[in-house]
Amino acid sequence: MNILIIGGGGVVGQKLGRALAARGALRGQAIGKITLADITDPAPLDGGTVPVETVTCDIADPASVAACVSGETDVIYLLAAIVSAHAEEDFEAGLAINLMGTLNVLQRVRALGTKPVVVFTSSIAVYGGEVPDPITDHSFLNPQTSYGAQKAMGELLLNDFSRKGFVDGRGFRLPTISVRPGKPNRAASSFMSSILREPLNGQEAVCPVEEDFPHYYLSPRKCVENLITGAEIDEGDLGQNRCMTMPGRMWTIRQMIDAMTAVAGPEPAKLIRWEAQPDIRAIVSGWRFDLRPEKAVALGLSADESFEDNIRYYLEDDKPAG
Amino acid sequence: MNILIIGGGGVVGQKLGRALAARGALRGQAIGKITLADITDPAPLDGGTVPVETVTCDIADPASVAACVSGETDVIYLLAAIVSAHAEEDFEAGLAINLMGTLNVLQRVRALGTKPVVVFTSSIAVYGGEVPDPITDHSFLNPQTSYGAQKAMGELLLNDFSRKGFVDGRGFRLPTISVRPGKPNRAASSFMSSILREPLNGQEAVCPVEEDFPHYYLSPRKCVENLITGAEIDEGDLGQNRCMTMPGRMWTIRQMIDAMTAVAGPEPAKLIRWEAQPDIRAIVSGWRFDLRPEKAVALGLSADESFEDNIRYYLEDDKPAG
Repeated sequence: MNILIIGGGGVVGQKLGRALAARGALRGQAIGKITLADITDPAPLDGGTVPVETVTCDIADPASVAACVSGETDVIYLLAAIVSAHAEEDFEAGLAINLMGTLNVLQRVRALGTKPVVVFTSSIAVYGGEVPDPITDHSFLNPQTSYGAQKAMGELLLNDFSRKGFVDGRGFRLPTISVRPGKPNRAASSFMSSILREPLNGQEAVCPVEEDFPHYYLSPRKCVENLITGAEIDEGDLGQNRCMTMPGRMWTIRQMIDAMTAVAGPEPAKLIRWEAQPDIRAIVSGWRFDLRPEKAVALGLSADESFEDNIRYYLEDDKPAG
Repeated sequence: MNILIIGGGGVVGQKLGRALAARGALRGQAIGKITLADITDPAPLDGGTVPVETVTCDIADPASVAACVSGETDVIYLLAAIVSAHAEEDFEAGLAINLMGTLNVLQRVRALGTKPVVVFTSSIAVYGGEVPDPITDHSFLNPQTSYGAQKAMGELLLNDFSRKGFVDGRGFRLPTISVRPGKPNRAASSFMSSILREPLNGQEAVCPVEEDFPHYYLSPRKCVENLITGAEIDEGDLGQNRCMTMPGRMWTIRQMIDAMTAVAGPEPAKLIRWEAQPDIRAIVSGWRFDLRPEKAVALGLSADESFEDNIRYYLEDDKPAG
């Protein structure tokens, strides 16, 4: 069992690599090797008894994909993406990585004829527009960002390559991941982690929306668990649509802060400054939060029990020492 | 007002060219020129006072697209496609024409910066899978053919290029066109015209499915009317999803044959041979027929009144003389 994680240098890719190595097996077989691939050399990680390699791969380039994806690859996690704000600013980069990169990986595997399991991360950004609530497994995908549009096209490719028998694909629309470790980024959703992460680290943070702002969240730890469960689903149970929303939960900013206070005491919440940012509000208010991931739940994927879990997981897994 | 019809050599492209020339105007402006483009030189047509040119264009080739699509093009009809059974047999050709060809046309227009109206023909083949009936404007696209998957990706591209302001796109999911003139083609739906067309021409035809097989149809005449109406819709009325089902009607094979008998007498129906073809049945039985095209109807598009109209239009517009 050889596993390739494309996007293995990212937050989810690194955590997934560590979790797989600790587990030592996937789909009933011992893991022989984990390969972390990314556009720049991913950070190495200690896999214990499981060898972990790192390689550079630009999925926009078919030759680079051919060098990275071999006939010995049994499971491919395709996590690499140009994310929302970046794809809005750089339209060509979004098309090159999110659309053509996905196509290049699938075409490489088709040429090999080995039919590996391909676990593709889509996003709840595929949802938008005038589609009525609630969003179910049978709701129209009407993305209002290029990132969402390209992810929706990736889903269609994954389904069609799977229907043709070229891959055994399964795709999961990730909720917003919180509490995400690391530094703030330029994504409009960045504050959805930083208003918790920075205060938990004793630093100030700015909240640009009202405290009743609702959104759909999942912890990094649960996301990784679901990605492993997702790889293990029997192909016959996936039906005619292999892409589905990964379970998350809807929380308001107020509920998230209350959860932080319940777990870590009253001090962190005092470090949040409230500063309305209408441009951020305009983007995030178009996002959907009333999502019903029934298919994924039936297949064994799950959400965090309460946002207190999300806070605890951050403290246990990610909070910098000292 | 210069109009480019890509796929201008096909049945719909030729009829559309003739109808536009006869009309002489589109979107409130006199038509200066109509250009018919196709992979092989399209048949010329007499546009009366409107000049009609023909050019060869391979949309899979960006250079060919650049030679064909100029800054003087105001309205592009993008009708060219590798149809269903053909795309199932030749996976690469389907990707090259249906996905990359659509992307090449949109990228060319984006590079020109002229924001033309782009009328894209999608297909009801985007619908399938386990999505519950009825199929509405907000139903999930779950195609079960490569053709349908590639058309669904074309819709996402059209919407995203429109949202970004690169084109003024509008896409219409065509019902199966019947009675289609000419010869059988490589669409799995080819029999849905030939079981009527050949008998109306005094020839034998084979029906590969049972007489209670239901499907969703539109006449070529109504399709062309709708494509013209579709180009004239005000951009502001299209909302956040510019792609919609073109209205058609559901009929069974029995109802279609009865309509033929009502219009043309009892002799044609006697020329139909019933011969089950499981491969054709497998493709067409995945197609949806309980479609509710509410958005398109609200925007002024319409279906045939009864299938007797479809028969009459064939006799009036297309039946070979003699």
